Amino acid sequence: MEEKVMKKRVALVGFVVVAMVLCSMGTLLAKEWEFVPQIKDFRFLFGGGTPVLKIKPGDRVKLWTEDAGQGLVKTKEDTFSKALAPIWPAVNPQTGPIYVEGAEPGDTLVLKVVNIEPAVDQAWSMIIPNFGFLTQTRYTSMLHEPLPANVWIYPIDKAKGTVRFISRLGPEKYQVDIPMHPFLGTIGTSPADGERFHSLTPYFHGGNMDCLETGIGSTIYLPVNVPGAMWSTGDVHLVQGDGETCGVAVEAAAWVTIDVLPLIKGKKVATPRFENDEYIMSAGSARPADDAIRIAYVDMINWLVEDYGFDKWDAYTLCSQVCPIRVGNIVDTYYTFVVKFPKKYLPQ
Amino acid sequence: MEEKVMKKRVALVGFVVVAMVLCSMGTLLAKEWEFVPQIKDFRFLFGGGTPVLKIKPGDRVKLWTEDAGQGLVKTKEDTFSKALAPIWPAVNPQTGPIYVEGAEPGDTLVLKVVNIEPAVDQAWSMIIPNFGFLTQTRYTSMLHEPLPANVWIYPIDKAKGTVRFISRLGPEKYQVDIPMHPFLGTIGTSPADGERFHSLTPYFHGGNMDCLETGIGSTIYLPVNVPGAMWSTGDVHLVQGDGETCGVAVEAAAWVTIDVLPLIKGKKVATPRFENDEYIMSAGSARPADDAIRIAYVDMINWLVEDYGFDKWDAYTLCSQVCPIRVGNIVDTYYTFVVKFPKKYLPQ
Amino acid sequence: MEEKVMKKRVALVGFVVVAMVLCSMGTLLAKEWEFVPQIKDFRFLFGGGTPVLKIKPGDRVKLWTEDAGQGLVKTKEDTFSKALAPIWPAVNPQTGPIYVEGAEPGDTLVLKVVNIEPAVDQAWSMIIPNFGFLTQTRYTSMLHEPLPANVWIYPIDKAKGTVRFISRLGPEKYQVDIPMHPFLGTIGTSPADGERFHSLTPYFHGGNMDCLETGIGSTIYLPVNVPGAMWSTGDVHLVQGDGETCGVAVEAAAWVTIDVLPLIKGKKVATPRFENDEYIMSAGSARPADDAIRIAYVDMINWLVEDYGFDKWDAYTLCSQVCPIRVGNIVDTYYTFVVKFPKKYLPQ
Amino acid sequence: MEEKVMKKRVALVGFVVVAMVLCSMGTLLAKEWEFVPQIKDFRFLFGGGTPVLKIKPGDRVKLWTEDAGQGLVKTKEDTFSKALAPIWPAVNPQTGPIYVEGAEPGDTLVLKVVNIEPAVDQAWSMIIPNFGFLTQTRYTSMLHEPLPANVWIYPIDKAKGTVRFISRLGPEKYQVDIPMHPFLGTIGTSPADGERFHSLTPYFHGGNMDCLETGIGSTIYLPVNVPGAMWSTGDVHLVQGDGETCGVAVEAAAWVTIDVLPLIKGKKVATPRFENDEYIMSAGSARPADDAIRIAYVDMINWLVEDYGFDKWDAYTLCSQVCPIRVGNIVDTYYTFVVKFPKKYLPQ
Repeated sequence: MEEKVMKKRVALVGFVVVAMVLCSMGTLLAKEWEFVPQIKDFRFLFGGGTPVLKIKPGDRVKLWTEDAGQGLVKTKEDTFSKALAPIWPAVNPQTGPIYVEGAEPGDTLVLKVVNIEPAVDQAWSMIIPNFGFLTQTRYTSMLHEPLPANVWIYPIDKAKGTVRFISRLGPEKYQVDIPMHPFLGTIGTSPADGERFHSLTPYFHGGNMDCLETGIGSTIYLPVNVPGAMWSTGDVHLVQGDGETCGVAVEAAAWVTIDVLPLIKGKKVATPRFENDEYIMSAGSARPADDAIRIAYVDMINWLVEDYGFDKWDAYTLCSQVCPIRVGNIVDTYYTFVVKFPKKYLPQ
Repeated sequence: MEEKVMKKRVALVGFVVVAMVLCSMGTLLAKEWEFVPQIKDFRFLFGGGTPVLKIKPGDRVKLWTEDAGQGLVKTKEDTFSKALAPIWPAVNPQTGPIYVEGAEPGDTLVLKVVNIEPAVDQAWSMIIPNFGFLTQTRYTSMLHEPLPANVWIYPIDKAKGTVRFISRLGPEKYQVDIPMHPFLGTIGTSPADGERFHSLTPYFHGGNMDCLETGIGSTIYLPVNVPGAMWSTGDVHLVQGDGETCGVAVEAAAWVTIDVLPLIKGKKVATPRFENDEYIMSAGSARPADDAIRIAYVDMINWLVEDYGFDKWDAYTLCSQVCPIRVGNIVDTYYTFVVKFPKKYLPQ
Repeated sequence: MEEKVMKKRVALVGFVVVAMVLCSMGTLLAKEWEFVPQIKDFRFLFGGGTPVLKIKPGDRVKLWTEDAGQGLVKTKEDTFSKALAPIWPAVNPQTGPIYVEGAEPGDTLVLKVVNIEPAVDQAWSMIIPNFGFLTQTRYTSMLHEPLPANVWIYPIDKAKGTVRFISRLGPEKYQVDIPMHPFLGTIGTSPADGERFHSLTPYFHGGNMDCLETGIGSTIYLPVNVPGAMWSTGDVHLVQGDGETCGVAVEAAAWVTIDVLPLIKGKKVATPRFENDEYIMSAGSARPADDAIRIAYVDMINWLVEDYGFDKWDAYTLCSQVCPIRVGNIVDTYYTFVVKFPKKYLPQ
Repeated sequence: MEEKVMKKRVALVGFVVVAMVLCSMGTLLAKEWEFVPQIKDFRFLFGGGTPVLKIKPGDRVKLWTEDAGQGLVKTKEDTFSKALAPIWPAVNPQTGPIYVEGAEPGDTLVLKVVNIEPAVDQAWSMIIPNFGFLTQTRYTSMLHEPLPANVWIYPIDKAKGTVRFISRLGPEKYQVDIPMHPFLGTIGTSPADGERFHSLTPYFHGGNMDCLETGIGSTIYLPVNVPGAMWSTGDVHLVQGDGETCGVAVEAAAWVTIDVLPLIKGKKVATPRFENDEYIMSAGSARPADDAIRIAYVDMINWLVEDYGFDKWDAYTLCSQVCPIRVGNIVDTYYTFVVKFPKKYLPQ
């Protein structure tokens, strides 16, 4: 523990946080933690492991998250076979697990994403042979030759808040700046029933959901399946379209600041939920896409019925008229979709 | 033909339309047509039939489209079994087919949606037993009792531009106004290869795509498979969330105004494409959802490569970072998804 | 009609057939028809068309069915692009439609396959680029280069009842004799609701199911959706594994003899059913495979409940223990699966 | 270890086994082990755990396997909610893990099923609400009321080799004897990459495949992902139809005798393979069914190419003509399908 860069500081907590903390935890001092994992600390599984931090609801953590390729993809020559195959399966390193005191199986962990900022000057993406949406894969197995491996390096302009896409054939062929909208590609708790899933897998515990909805300002609700919840996060994406279709977003190491809000005791979300100023949201992860949407959609209807007093059939048909559905990822072990209910239609 | 309310008028064409027509058709007078189908004119198939209008590129049509239930759903008691089962399969009536002079197999028909306005004072939606996304259906066949039939009537406030959702348990339980964003639930040409599909089916010819992207201001590109293209439209939705999940949107008869733009000669879109101020878009219809997205996504990449000079692998990875994917419908014979490329990233 | 080779003969009907005919039709003379289509007679659609024969229940038809490539694939050089693309979509020619007197919408047509024998000396198969199960296709659209086109010619040994598979690299590389088990790749009636489907499509009307269960000795139950049922057949496969995975079976022109059994009046099968000495069977066609199986399985349970008095939950669990599920095709527009209930477990 | 009933005996090994052992292991004495787990020994995960036995290739193990419900389902009243929900997730107990000396990551474990015999006098099956193929589930989530829970008890007649199905409404309603064909519902090694899966999950490591092909006389090839392979087995089914569609087969505790054949060193199967007198077989586990079949089918083609010298395209098309595809399970976390190549078509 001594080799970790970690500081405990008395938090500058405003009234709301204090109230929150007082109400829920009986603790007077919320703390702020900073943690930078070393290579030996990286986690590649959800489930098991030893906590890197033990914190309380009300605390804030500032975490350094490594990129999905352990920082090994630095030039266009660093293809999957050259840079990442040698370390496989040690890709998509997670920072964690973090133990939250008081979290018991059956509770819901509530995390708020306060900030995400790139910790490096360039990001990367790649086409990995036999991985992605428009190719044969280990799951959708076929007889084709694999697609050609390619790497794109994206310079980051923090002042402008953009990354630059540059054609693999050179900037004279095509280049363009794309605004950053960073989010946590991966965040989750320890799975239920003793299972352990690779950090590339999204499932009922969260994990590698790759949803734009886990960006700055979002609140994330995750199931607590083991004492302490044992949550991890990583895989920051600076930019990503719906579906992460080529299999890799614009990847970068980042500083991530998260507030641990009061636990919801005695009630466990069935599948991850998110919330921001505009929407309450349910996420479902499964294959095929149909089933991922079904999980999210039924959970949203249950949410509206249980917490907002909607009639079940009203909720079904009203969602049909007003809910956007976000395609999160359609490339991982399971696909992830998000159903979003506009808060303006919630009963007052 | 004499019993149809149809008027040919010299169009009040502005400079742009005249130029367009002059350039493409060598015709000096674009015409404006108005057509209100009688019950006997309704079409329930894409493919076959006798044209209700013969028009030219450059012409404008103002069409009356009946709602998907032939106007028979007027109260909460008008459930599917009472109001619609008796007329089955005569649901989702289409206005058309319309013959476009000069359109030959291998061309692309280009239509621009100029206006859509509700022609009635109330709209409706319903839960149909064994139809919709969160229920067993004829395709996803199971052993459950069907979900209960229910009807919702939505009063339309044209001045405010809203419809009112009222709980099936009464307005005191819950009611809310929802802004209208009308679009064409169904629009398509005659299918290829002599096939004929019910108006409830979306496929490569377009049809019942139920995509929000066919609203006012959108340009729609459809394949021409038979002489004259023989296109129809109908099924206006005033409001719909992504997926049309309960199976029925907010349905109403409407006045629809469409400009027939110059044909793209000698090049046929592989699947419907849309365009508006912000996006160029490809639509794919298939089951499961995975395949619908694949069709749309590959078409978008082909579009970028063929028409905008993108390198294929650049296009794949750039789309992965910047393209939204819209869930059109996930309830019809085939699901429809739309991949949207932001025009701001097109090369100048 | 005069140019068709067709003979009406007084059938040599045994006691059973006579009894059958007497019971059901009140007709004293069952007839035997022979029909050899000319090229202009080929049908490539289910739905529409003019009958090539008008017959009665109790009649026997001996039909000549062309192979799926119109006889154009004769050597290893006759790839899809060379031999079949030029005639597209005129592939999978059907013999029919045949009008059955007395058949009305809501009835079930019952056909018994009496004999199938190859009419030629060699059969063929091929790998068609972008068609088949282990490749990207028009539906499962991807970014790969297509698989290489290849053709295999299978000499037929009628005496031994085998076809010979010969390696594309020559017989010295590998060759083997495979026993023939001929069946009707395609058989169906006119679809419901005015729809017309290409002969390559299987659906609720039957069509291109590519199921081994439509071989000699099988009884086939098909829905009657239009007056006369308007059924067609073709696409004889001499040999096929489950799924027809490369997309093409061992294809040959054939002589097909079918008895039209008495209609089941006033009751229409929901999906095609088959019967032989060992099994009663339901076929479902849909995508993905899951849904095809569901359609067939629920139909089987309904059949056991409605016709054999089973309790619904008994039927569900008993089927789970004793029913084989046959993979018909997993390459066509829809996949087809067959659920088979052993007759020995039917109540006496 | 002292409380386990375990005996080491000098095996009565015939010439073949001796030769096998001599050739591969240099060991003179193959051993025979017997192991009966106590409740505290049950494993519900593949991955992790402490070996209950350490054995060598050439050894024989006789294992007692508990039924999937820990023996708690004894009468028709023992529904899931009453008998099994209280112990959840401790269902489908496995006997193991067994450590095989010399097995290293990258090898293939080869097991031969010598015998399976029921250890009890009655077996059971049930309908579990929200589990099974023809119902909404946790994955295919819908808005229906669950199907009714029901339990069936099957008396076993060991002399006749049958189980008796008795209607839930009583034997006077319907009963029938069904021949037993016992097999291992679940058998697998420790998964790769540190993952741990519940014993209800089939995947690339094997696990809950529920395939009839793991019966007496079958050889099973499994990947070695961790030192010692750490394999387990359980969940014997006395009878099961294709797909295990209601979710539960005819379940019973059993004695299972398995020979550990010589390891295949330095070559790891990509997915489980089976072999019996008639077929070589590949198993694939995924959702939807399409992908499970693809995994199995591509693995079979690779097998034919790598081990039997087939040309890749010959193998693809020949499999299309001669391979049965078995539906294993279509109810578990992943579905399992088996592609079977007839040995008679293997080159000599």
